Amino acid sequence: MSGTDPRPEAGEIQSDELYGVSGGQVADLRAALDAHDLVRVEEMALALHTADLADLIEGLAPSERRILIDILGPRVDPELLTFLAEPVREEVVGYLGPADVAAAVTEMDTDDALDVVASLDEPVQAEVLEQLEAGDRAALEEALAHPEDSAGRLMQREFVAVPARWTVGETIDYLREEAEHGAEHLPEEFLDLFVVDDGGKPLGMVSLSRILRTRRPVRLEDLMDTDIDRIPVTTDQEEVAHLFRQYDLASAPVVDTDGKMVGVITHDDVMDVVHEEAEEDILGLAGIRQDSVYDSVLSTSRSRISWLFLSLLGLLCASLVIWLFEDAIEQVVALAVLMPIVAALGGNAGIQAMTVAVRALSMKELHRGNALRILGKEIMVAAVNGLLLAVVVGIVAGLWFSSVHLGAILAGSLVINLLAAGAVGVIIPFTLDRFSVDPAIASSPFLITVTDTVGFAAFLGSATYFLL
Amino acid sequence: MSGTDPRPEAGEIQSDELYGVSGGQVADLRAALDAHDLVRVEEMALALHTADLADLIEGLAPSERRILIDILGPRVDPELLTFLAEPVREEVVGYLGPADVAAAVTEMDTDDALDVVASLDEPVQAEVLEQLEAGDRAALEEALAHPEDSAGRLMQREFVAVPARWTVGETIDYLREEAEHGAEHLPEEFLDLFVVDDGGKPLGMVSLSRILRTRRPVRLEDLMDTDIDRIPVTTDQEEVAHLFRQYDLASAPVVDTDGKMVGVITHDDVMDVVHEEAEEDILGLAGIRQDSVYDSVLSTSRSRISWLFLSLLGLLCASLVIWLFEDAIEQVVALAVLMPIVAALGGNAGIQAMTVAVRALSMKELHRGNALRILGKEIMVAAVNGLLLAVVVGIVAGLWFSSVHLGAILAGSLVINLLAAGAVGVIIPFTLDRFSVDPAIASSPFLITVTDTVGFAAFLGSATYFLL
Repeated sequence: MSGTDPRPEAGEIQSDELYGVSGGQVADLRAALDAHDLVRVEEMALALHTADLADLIEGLAPSERRILIDILGPRVDPELLTFLAEPVREEVVGYLGPADVAAAVTEMDTDDALDVVASLDEPVQAEVLEQLEAGDRAALEEALAHPEDSAGRLMQREFVAVPARWTVGETIDYLREEAEHGAEHLPEEFLDLFVVDDGGKPLGMVSLSRILRTRRPVRLEDLMDTDIDRIPVTTDQEEVAHLFRQYDLASAPVVDTDGKMVGVITHDDVMDVVHEEAEEDILGLAGIRQDSVYDSVLSTSRSRISWLFLSLLGLLCASLVIWLFEDAIEQVVALAVLMPIVAALGGNAGIQAMTVAVRALSMKELHRGNALRILGKEIMVAAVNGLLLAVVVGIVAGLWFSSVHLGAILAGSLVINLLAAGAVGVIIPFTLDRFSVDPAIASSPFLITVTDTVGFAAFLGSATYFLL
Repeated sequence: MSGTDPRPEAGEIQSDELYGVSGGQVADLRAALDAHDLVRVEEMALALHTADLADLIEGLAPSERRILIDILGPRVDPELLTFLAEPVREEVVGYLGPADVAAAVTEMDTDDALDVVASLDEPVQAEVLEQLEAGDRAALEEALAHPEDSAGRLMQREFVAVPARWTVGETIDYLREEAEHGAEHLPEEFLDLFVVDDGGKPLGMVSLSRILRTRRPVRLEDLMDTDIDRIPVTTDQEEVAHLFRQYDLASAPVVDTDGKMVGVITHDDVMDVVHEEAEEDILGLAGIRQDSVYDSVLSTSRSRISWLFLSLLGLLCASLVIWLFEDAIEQVVALAVLMPIVAALGGNAGIQAMTVAVRALSMKELHRGNALRILGKEIMVAAVNGLLLAVVVGIVAGLWFSSVHLGAILAGSLVINLLAAGAVGVIIPFTLDRFSVDPAIASSPFLITVTDTVGFAAFLGSATYFLL
């Protein structure tokens, strides 16, 4: 962050203007763009914090974005690309061209550079890589070889590693000297020092606050915390996030298969992962693989249609069940009026149980050891809520169609469907997870098929048996 | 973290055993508890990292938890309470009793102590507060006066504040001396130094890595970053999380109404908030206010039933619509067979649009400035997906009931319902948000009522018009 960065002071801010760009700023910039007031546009855009400029660019229409990028050109902070949402980033990369993008990438921290390059489409990525210096290119290509969503992709390759025999004083002197020589291999900001052996294997960590509180002659080996988590470079980012959360880590060393330290993961990398993973669960539960408000209509439509077709298959099953009871409906039309209640309430209760199960799986709170206990609990919850709903629904339907029998049948089938919903709400995500299918994405269509089918079958079946 | 903390080394770990307790460890501890092997139980429990011990306790049955806590007694790490899920924490607090809880609270960082005390039920909280020293009690009571979910609740009251005229050398000397005198008012770990004026107002921040890289004679005023975010003590935690994410902060000063620095918020506090907020969105979308797999059946049932009753109201509206078309169904039973397809596909498509809108509102990507554009996009997406589904559904239904008309009516009403679903999927959450109602919690029942009603009315209405 540079000193020219003009975020408001505490005294003047409204609570919802604590940060970021306001609608007014977007409107002002638009007006300046429309008026072709290039000087004003540039002044306004460059005065913003880069993260806020990114938000502002996201808020513009594509044609306005192009003009703004043309005006700013290579003067824009290279970090801008890291802050842009992916669809907008692709667009901006197109406007900048491979040479400017490569120049920006060169100036980024290695983890940000990797993030940007990895998100580019294959041909654009190749073009950008070609424009890089051989050393930078090789480093990025090596990093790109790590599997997506692995610790290797998340880590920063610059870190401070020092030998255990050094003292606090030697360490501080080393850092000061390196800083004065403009050491490029040290990160700009760091939270911990890593103590490594002669082979580069991490032996321990020392937090900077500990270094600062300790006298110069003390050796790092007497100061370091040796109980550290070494993250293998192939570890999934979800595991990494759990680790940071579980132990409140600020940073952790990443090691290759030989145990040699190759990078560091810090809390801000993990914050992004936590967001991403929560996002995946939320969108997945609604059958969306990926979505951004900045995606185009067609790519949005594509990301959602397969789930709708899957739901359609389930609904056709349900229709088949209804069709089997055509005679009953022809004789008692009230059945058609009431049957959606049984099916839909079952679906809703099932989604509640399923959502909790999906989150518990994500948080590792649901596992083989307690699955049966949680299943039992969900069935009890379904019984309680099913009975409460059944009483109300039974009375309403009984009065509406002046039939105690119809009310009782509706109430009974509702309880049956809620019990089924509670059970499959746990069983489906747990089973999918066992087979390594993401339960967030695949659970709902199965669940709704079950609750629709059971709901219609229980209601229409018992009506046929008792009423006709 | 102490040196006795026996998490596995990188060499020996399986990827899904990177951290935490395994099912085997829980089973071993259970066996030792059953065998009344107190020495073994104690040995196993105290050998774990506190966060892992908390997981292990969560995995036990209540009776086992009680025995374990009785065995461990006051020897357990006071931080244990901070790691436990809330329902389990309440239980354990009951076993420990107010005196032991108060002793544990005294040893925690102020933010953790506040977190634990705030989560206790009123009478228990009063008992614990009574057991505290006057100074600690007053500090906690003052902190409890801040609104829930505010920066004042999140912040830690210990921080390192130094005057701007100090040099790097003086600062390091001060920290070393304070450390040797066991300074209780300094946090155990810290990431940044805060530079304050004589009135205690923050002037700037210096990261520890910057201190370490700078020569002793340099003054802090020449080193500090003055472009800092001062968080008012009343700021909502969601705002705080956005701020940290937007600018990748490690820590930020919290100020009172006079602008005086009263605390610091660090990245790990924010990580918990990010989780909490995502959790709220996910559970809210399924109509659950709060849930933990460790909640009792009755409290789980209570947290879910109101949403089910709300859905029931919507479903009764839908039933009313069907009832209006009783005659049509009596004449053409196929209508009853097919009508759930129109209603449910509309509901599913609507939930997709709504989920994206709810997340975009949470992330501040949907606002007055682009609401109309996003509404337009959702309607276009609905048109594309509606047409695709309509073609398939129309053909299937037409062949099934050998009626081109029926197929066409089904297809047409499906498109109408998807358009309605896409529109209300954006409009409902956006409107609720404008009226400061959490859109995640309240949107779904409204949406489903609309898609059911529109779906049934469009299908049965057009069938009545064209077929009868």
